Parts: sequence; structure tokens; C-alpha cells
Amino acid sequence: MSTVLKGIAASSGIAIAKAYRLVEPDLSFEKTSVDNTMEEVSRFQQAISTSKAELEAIRDAAKVDLGEDKAAIFEAHLLVLSDPELVGPIEDNIKSQQMNAEAALKETADMFVTMFESMDNEYMKERAADIRDVTKRVLSHLLGVQIVNPSMISEEVVVVAEDLTPSDTAQLNKKFVKGFTTDIGGRTSHSAIMARSLEIPAVVGTKVATSEIQNGDIVIIDGLNGEVHINPTNEIIQKYEEINKKYEQQKLEWAKLVNEKTVSADGHHVELAANIGTPNDLDGVKNNGGEGVGLYRTEFLYMGRDELPTEDEQFESYKAVLEGMQEKPVVVRTLDIGGDKELPYLNLPHEMNPFLGYRAIRLCLDQQEIFRTQLRALLRASIYGNLKIMFPMISNLDEFRQAKDILFEEKGKLVSEGVKVAEEIEVGIMVEIPSTAVMADLFAKEVDFFSIGTNDLIQYTMAADRMNERISYLYQPYNPAILRLVKMVIDAAHKEGKWAGMCGEMAGDEIAVPILLGLGLDEFSMSATSILKARSQIRSLSKSDMETLANNVLQMHTNEEVLSEVKRILK
Amino acid sequence: MSTVLKGIAASSGIAIAKAYRLVEPDLSFEKTSVDNTMEEVSRFQQAISTSKAELEAIRDAAKVDLGEDKAAIFEAHLLVLSDPELVGPIEDNIKSQQMNAEAALKETADMFVTMFESMDNEYMKERAADIRDVTKRVLSHLLGVQIVNPSMISEEVVVVAEDLTPSDTAQLNKKFVKGFTTDIGGRTSHSAIMARSLEIPAVVGTKVATSEIQNGDIVIIDGLNGEVHINPTNEIIQKYEEINKKYEQQKLEWAKLVNEKTVSADGHHVELAANIGTPNDLDGVKNNGGEGVGLYRTEFLYMGRDELPTEDEQFESYKAVLEGMQEKPVVVRTLDIGGDKELPYLNLPHEMNPFLGYRAIRLCLDQQEIFRTQLRALLRASIYGNLKIMFPMISNLDEFRQAKDILFEEKGKLVSEGVKVAEEIEVGIMVEIPSTAVMADLFAKEVDFFSIGTNDLIQYTMAADRMNERISYLYQPYNPAILRLVKMVIDAAHKEGKWAGMCGEMAGDEIAVPILLGLGLDEFSMSATSILKARSQIRSLSKSDMETLANNVLQMHTNEEVLSEVKRILK
Repeated sequence: MSTVLKGIAASSGIAIAKAYRLVEPDLSFEKTSVDNTMEEVSRFQQAISTSKAELEAIRDAAKVDLGEDKAAIFEAHLLVLSDPELVGPIEDNIKSQQMNAEAALKETADMFVTMFESMDNEYMKERAADIRDVTKRVLSHLLGVQIVNPSMISEEVVVVAEDLTPSDTAQLNKKFVKGFTTDIGGRTSHSAIMARSLEIPAVVGTKVATSEIQNGDIVIIDGLNGEVHINPTNEIIQKYEEINKKYEQQKLEWAKLVNEKTVSADGHHVELAANIGTPNDLDGVKNNGGEGVGLYRTEFLYMGRDELPTEDEQFESYKAVLEGMQEKPVVVRTLDIGGDKELPYLNLPHEMNPFLGYRAIRLCLDQQEIFRTQLRALLRASIYGNLKIMFPMISNLDEFRQAKDILFEEKGKLVSEGVKVAEEIEVGIMVEIPSTAVMADLFAKEVDFFSIGTNDLIQYTMAADRMNERISYLYQPYNPAILRLVKMVIDAAHKEGKWAGMCGEMAGDEIAVPILLGLGLDEFSMSATSILKARSQIRSLSKSDMETLANNVLQMHTNEEVLSEVKRILK
Repeated sequence: MSTVLKGIAASSGIAIAKAYRLVEPDLSFEKTSVDNTMEEVSRFQQAISTSKAELEAIRDAAKVDLGEDKAAIFEAHLLVLSDPELVGPIEDNIKSQQMNAEAALKETADMFVTMFESMDNEYMKERAADIRDVTKRVLSHLLGVQIVNPSMISEEVVVVAEDLTPSDTAQLNKKFVKGFTTDIGGRTSHSAIMARSLEIPAVVGTKVATSEIQNGDIVIIDGLNGEVHINPTNEIIQKYEEINKKYEQQKLEWAKLVNEKTVSADGHHVELAANIGTPNDLDGVKNNGGEGVGLYRTEFLYMGRDELPTEDEQFESYKAVLEGMQEKPVVVRTLDIGGDKELPYLNLPHEMNPFLGYRAIRLCLDQQEIFRTQLRALLRASIYGNLKIMFPMISNLDEFRQAKDILFEEKGKLVSEGVKVAEEIEVGIMVEIPSTAVMADLFAKEVDFFSIGTNDLIQYTMAADRMNERISYLYQPYNPAILRLVKMVIDAAHKEGKWAGMCGEMAGDEIAVPILLGLGLDEFSMSATSILKARSQIRSLSKSDMETLANNVLQMHTNEEVLSEVKRILK
């Protein structure tokens, strides 16, 4: 029987493959007393050997597909399994207390985990995590339960998960993972952004994917319409194969625009730029005809490690991106950490409302050493391309002035040390907090550019956490309140002869693009994979018609009204 | 040695008294083995007797000072102490396992707590809470540690706490508690609002009060300037006694205005109303010359209980307030739960950002039975006074329309059942979400009035959790962005012939009042105790001068600039 789930189209395209469930297994067990302790010890040793063999295979595969540093994780796990300090006490417990192996393993491991975690030492805390992972693996073999491991996938599949963490996605091998679907998340969740960057179809926020889909089910991920088909009929499969063919053909059409300018039907030029996370994303920018980088998210430099990146490490990354873009503009956003993005080694306090908390520029102005290091690295790299620096989460002019003062202080220091720094570096801000949009007229006199961050601007303007499923209906990009704020920002910029861009998800959205073109947005920065489609769309639109549309929708009452009006116009 | 702490002036006035620390005691102990188990049992029985005597005293005092229902809590605790099902196993454990009394008590009690809590039954869960409370008390006697109990305070003190919960404050006896100071919180935290409602001086957010102040220290709470003096010199005490005298004299001057209208120096009338939480607050409204209730927070009806209040219970409260205000306007805000205000019995999910979450009208439109019951109670009460109904957390027109439709449905039902309902009931909204301020022109065509909720409006507009100490500097009421949004709302209302009020803390703030008068605000709703001071201030100001001031500050850059300008004008 064929079932269809509705979700959010997070990454375009069609995938048809067998389901692979990336779901935490049930590792619960009863503590029991065993009579034959020798047999129990041997059962335990067997589970250890199997785990070792498995880890060696994963390690070797990881070396090839994911690189040495990812493989090192599994090397560490192997060391844990060979540690007599851990294995010894477990066997003793089985023998002396007649415990079953599961209980002996769990109790001993838990003791070590608690001990290591209580130490104020990042290295030991990492060891605790290793022990926890390894314990799960051995336990799964004792219980005969399969644990999942995305890096072990070796046939074409569609991944089904509650949600995908950045570390899950880092382990996905694009060669085999043809698409994915999740229970939670929205168009702006990390898993969605990652899917677009990997260019694999994804449908997120289905609520029920993990409960409806079994391992091995045939699944169609329809990333164009946000649908997931489970065990479809041959007829449906055929239909989708045709849709996919058409979509691939359309992509070929779009691909012809890779070296074209983005000019509207009536001759108005705008810039289509890409959002990137690492220098590795530059290939995607080039292949998709990006006219610049509109948002370089520097957080990834700080994530998945034990300590802050050094100035030199940062310099190398910034230089690589600037050189790679060959004089095309690169807007680098300074560290935007906090909120839903944590750095364990900064020991940030737990907050009741992290999205309204100590993050981004707030943290940088408070912990200035972190900020100054990044700015120095950026300044040193500035001579290798066309750098523009952008501060995130600016809510008032004081913050911008402070941040700019610090930048100029560091620039002065570098120059006096004889380090070369580009003469002219544009300094701008993200507009993602309502107060800043409302004050855009005054900001425009002091900044060089604005980049509107719609993901946050929408959630603050509507007071609705965009990650919260219960109120996701309030994440309304076309609500006239949002469009009015966007207009304020663009108008304020133009009045002072500055440019205004947008680097939120909205910038590549086919419903929003016509309105934004009409409002006079200068730069649209989006997932690289959305650029060609947007270019094709803009070339078909008349800017002056879109101005009429924009003026019209600004007076509408609701998100739905605007959506219908744009759909009517686009028909 | 005299020390001075800086904090946030949360409630006006001066208090000088001995410190009483309301801090969780250290009840940790070692599990040991005892030789003389009979002696240990007798030590345990002794602790039980002492606890019983103590609870009886508290219960009797509570009956007099706090009422029968508060006293019932302690009655329940006494029953637990007499329960052989609990006491028996503890004594058995001491005897059979040679455990010390502390360990025997804790292990047995924990077992019952776990058992009761796992039951899906509110009554049993309450019993678990009782056992936990009683265990603490007995443990404190075994350990010779003093546990604190606000309802036992029987001399004049100043309370020192990390924070005060609503239930702590409910137990404070104003006769003895002269003031308080806390480590955390701001002007808009619940403890601050409660202090103003109780009319006791308070300084919150000192960060270090509990670490700096010992029991018995002499403490001055300067609720006018936000200072706390610890063990001050006689000279300082004398100085404060004089300040206090002057302040009391000023209050007498203000008191003369209790029956006066609120009219500016150039003859413009505005309405000064009060924010209330329960019918008990009406005395304060009358004594302070409130011209109405601008915000009746109905949440308190739902809090501190096991289940939703019935329609009749609600009806009685609403009727009491409407009758008590004798035809003066009463703006009732429908249920604003969620965010930092939880109702355990609703089993709301844990949210990552509760302030951006499922709360207030969002919850009411989803769980409509709760909403409809409240609306029916309000409609039935409407014939007893001048009721206006206000919906909280409205972020878009759809929500308002839905809420209003439900109200009219219930009205229609009541009328068809033959129940009397007032003909004209104004229906308005809180403006506390930026999107609604930006769309005020369109809202104004559909609502009867606006009431600007600045506490939330500021936190969403600046994207800064007002309860988060690390970024409390971003809670900027005078930021021109906020003032511009306030202006949008007032102008939009007037254009459609509607009225605009404000019920956030800002409405009673002496720096904000001149600006708000200049912007044309019609109604100022505040803590009752702020009304006379505000009336006195407004009578001294010329509205037309304040219009100039308002236009002026709207073009300023920062919160600080506006603050200085108003201070300059007020000099």
C-alpha cells in the first residue's frame, strides 16, 4: 500500500531509493543474575571482537571517503576497546557478582563516564564521549540490535531520521545517500541548509517519517513539492521518473545561464551571490554562476573542535575564499555563535531563551579577544580579494560603532606592524533584528551596506521560534509586516547611496524574488544551488511590473493574501 | 564595614532592617553505618517530633495571616509525618541495615517520591511534593541545619534571596517583610512586579546579594536608587531615615491627587489606570486614584492549582472586579500563559525558546475549550461593569479575526440560551510583537483599541530576553526604535478614531511619561502605586512642549541620547 507524507520541501529534486533509518536503537535491558559466568564472559569477549572488527572496517572506509581526521574518531574508539582498565573490571563484575554482561558493561562504563565528565578537562570529557559511543556499540552486539552508522552506508538509499545533526550530515556519503526526510525541522533548519549545499533532495518536518517508514521500504523524496511517497505503485514511480527527467532537463536549461548577468526583462541588473560555510563550497558557487559570496558563515571554522581556531588558521581559510573568488565580492560575517549554535569550549551558560540571548556580536563585544583575533585574520587576508566585513545581530547603533572602532583599532595596529591591509574594506551589518530595520535611516548614514537576514528577522518580528514545530505557521516570510521592514531597509540604504542585500533563505524563494526585485533589492544571496533558477526567473520578470506588485502587497493584510497575489501574477 | 551593592530599583521606598536569607540550605550527608541502632531510631523520632511541633506552629500562624487554604498545605505535611507506611520502613532500615537515620529517611522517601511521581494522577503527584518537603524538614533537624520558611518570619526583616518565586512572595507577610533584594531579575520580573503590588521597597538583580549578606546583617534597601547597603554606619542610616521621611512626605503630597483628573498643564486629559492580578488588588487601585483597570492579568486565576478554573470560578472573579470598579473601564486580558509562566496541569512541552513559543493567544486558539470557557465567563460578567476584552500576543490579523470570531460565537450561544450579555464590549489587542506594531494601520480598522505591552515589545524588537542578566543592557525602553513603533501604533489608532493605551512597565516610568504624553498616548496603565506620582508629573507638563520633545527624540540615535535629553528637559 502506498502512503504519502506531507512535509516541507527543503532541497529540490527527486530521489527514489530504499529507506535507511538513522534512528537511535532501543538498547534497554534487564539486570539479571547469571549462573554460568564463564559463558557470560565469553559472550562479552565475543561482542568486543565483533565491535573491533566493525570499527576497523568503518575506520578504513572513513579514511577513504571522509578523510583522516574523521577516521581518527574510530581509531580512538578502538583504543577504548583494548583498554584493560575498562575491560578488566567488566569481566570481574561478571565473575564476582554473577552479573549479566550487559549490566556489567553498563555499570562500569557509566562509572568511567561520570568520572571523566566531572573533570575540568576537555580531553577527559572527550574520552567520556568515546566510552559512551563504544558502550553503545558493544551493547548493541550483546543485545543483537543493529545500531546505525551513516558512514557505513554502501548502497543507494534515502535516509530517514528524526532530525539530522551537523555531525550526521558530515558523515553522509553523497555517492550513496540520494535524499533524506526528517520528522522535524523547517526550510531554515541546519539539515535543510546542508541538503541544499550537498544538492540532494530533502523533505523535512514530516512529523511522522520515522514512525511510518521501515528499513527497506521504497521511498520517493519529492523535494520539489515537499512530499514523501512510501512504497509507491509502479505507476507513481514511473510518474516521478518522468518528473525527475523534466527537472534534470530544466537544470540543463538553467545551466546555460552560468556565465550570464542577472538582468530583468526591462534591463535592471541585480547581483546573485551565494551563502557559503567553508572554502570547500566555492566549487558550488562557481558551478552555479554565483556573482559573489553574499554570506560567508565563519562559524564552521569554530565548530567541531576543542579550542578556538588560531589567527593563522582563520587567515588561511579567509585567504582561500578571497583568492578563490578572484576579485568578486566576498561578504564575511563575523562570528555568529550562540543561539542554536554552541561551542562547548567557550563554556557558555545555559540560557532560557538562547535565540534572545548572548550570541553573535553580543558575545564578540564582550569577549573581545575572540573578536579581535578574527578581525586580524580578516584584515590580513583582505589583500587577496574583494573583502567586505559584516557584523551579525546588530540591534542598536552603539554596537555597530563599538564593533567598527575595534576593527579600526586592529587595522591601525597591523599597519603600524608593517602588515599589508587593503585600503578600502566595506563594513556593513546584518539586519535581522526589528529595531535595526526600524532605525535603518540612521544606520544607513554610518554603514557601507546592509544585508537583511530574513531567517532571524522573521522570527523576531513575529516573535516565533522558527525551530518550534507548534508555531511554525507563524514563520511568515510574506507577511506584509516583514515586507514593510524590508522596504524600510532598502529605501534607507538607497537614500544614502548604499547597497542593500539579503542573505536569508527568502532571497532565493521564487515567491519572494519578484517582490524583492520590485522593492529594489540590490543583492540576493542564497544557496548556490538556487542561483541559476533565480537568475532564470529574474530574466523573465519586468522590474517596473514588480514595483507595482510590491506596492500592492505592502498594503495587504496577511501572508496568505500576498502568497496568492504573487502566484496569480506568476501564472 | 559598610558595603554597597548596585542593583535595579524595582519598587520605590526605603527599608532598613535585619537581613533574612531565603536560601536553600545544604542538606548533604554521608551514608554511614551505625552501631547503636536504638539510639539512631530515637534520634530519628526526635527529629519527627520537632518537625511536627514546628509544622503545627506554622499552620496556626498561616491560618491567621494567610488564610485557611495556605494553612491546608501544612496540615497535609503533618499527615505525612504521622503516616506509619512512611515512618515504619525508615525505622526498619535503621534497625536491620544499621543505616544512619539521614540515609534511611532519604532512601525510603525517595522511593515513595519516585513511585508517586510515576503515577499518572495529579493527586499522587502532589503527595510526592509533600513528602519531598517534609523530608527536607526532618533532614534539616537531623543535620542541625536551619531551613528557611518565609511564613515563619515574625520580626521586621529585609528578605535576601537569589530570586523570589510567586509562591515565595505569596507567603511573605507584609507586616514583617519590609523590603527585599535579589541576585537576579529586572524591573519587569515577577518579583519586581509583586514588590510594587505589595508596596514594599525592592532592589533586584544585584548579582551578589546572597553571597554578600549574612543573616542578621543590617541592610538598607534603597528602592529609589537601586542600592543595597550592608551594615551601614550610623551616619548612613541617619541619612536614609531622612530620605525616607522626605519620601513619605512626598507620598502624602501625591495622595492629595487621589480624586483629581489627570490633566496636563495645558489642559489635555489622559487616563491613568492600574495593572491588577486579582480582585484583591482593587483596594490598591482605589487608594491610589486609578481611573480604571488597564490590564487585568487573568493568569493568576489559573496558577497555583491542579486543574483549570471552572467557568463559574472565573465568572465570580471577573464580576468582583467589574463591580468593584463601578462602571470605570476594566480591560481584561485573556489567558497569557506559556513563556515564563507555566501551568503544570496543561503538560506544555518543554521549548527551546519559550518567549518565542507556544503561549497566550497561540495556545488559546489551539486549545479552544480553555479559551471559550474564559470568554463565556467574561461575557456573563460583562453586565456588571464596563468590560473591555483584550487578546495578548497577537502577531497577525488572522489571529485577531479568529479570536474575535470565537468571542462572537460564544456571545451568540449565550444570548440564545437567554443569558444576559452587555451589548457593547470593546475588543482590542495587546501590541507587544513588532509585526503588529508595523501593521497597526490595518489592525486599527478592525480593533476597538490597542494596549502597547512594552515589556515584550522591547524584548522582541531588540531580540533580547529581558530576564537574561548578560544582555539586560539591551532592554532599552528609550531606544528610538521602540519609540517609533509606539508612535506608529498611537497614530494608527487615532487615524481610525480608536484609543491607544500602554500597559507595560514603561507607562509609569518618569522618563517615558513625558515622551508618551507628547506622542498622544490616551491611557497609561501601571502598578497602582505609581499612579499618583505619574499624575503629579503629568499635571506639571505641557502636552505641546512634550510633542516637541517627542518629535525630537524620534530622530535620535540611541537609548542614552534620549535619556539625557528627557533628563535635561525635566530639570
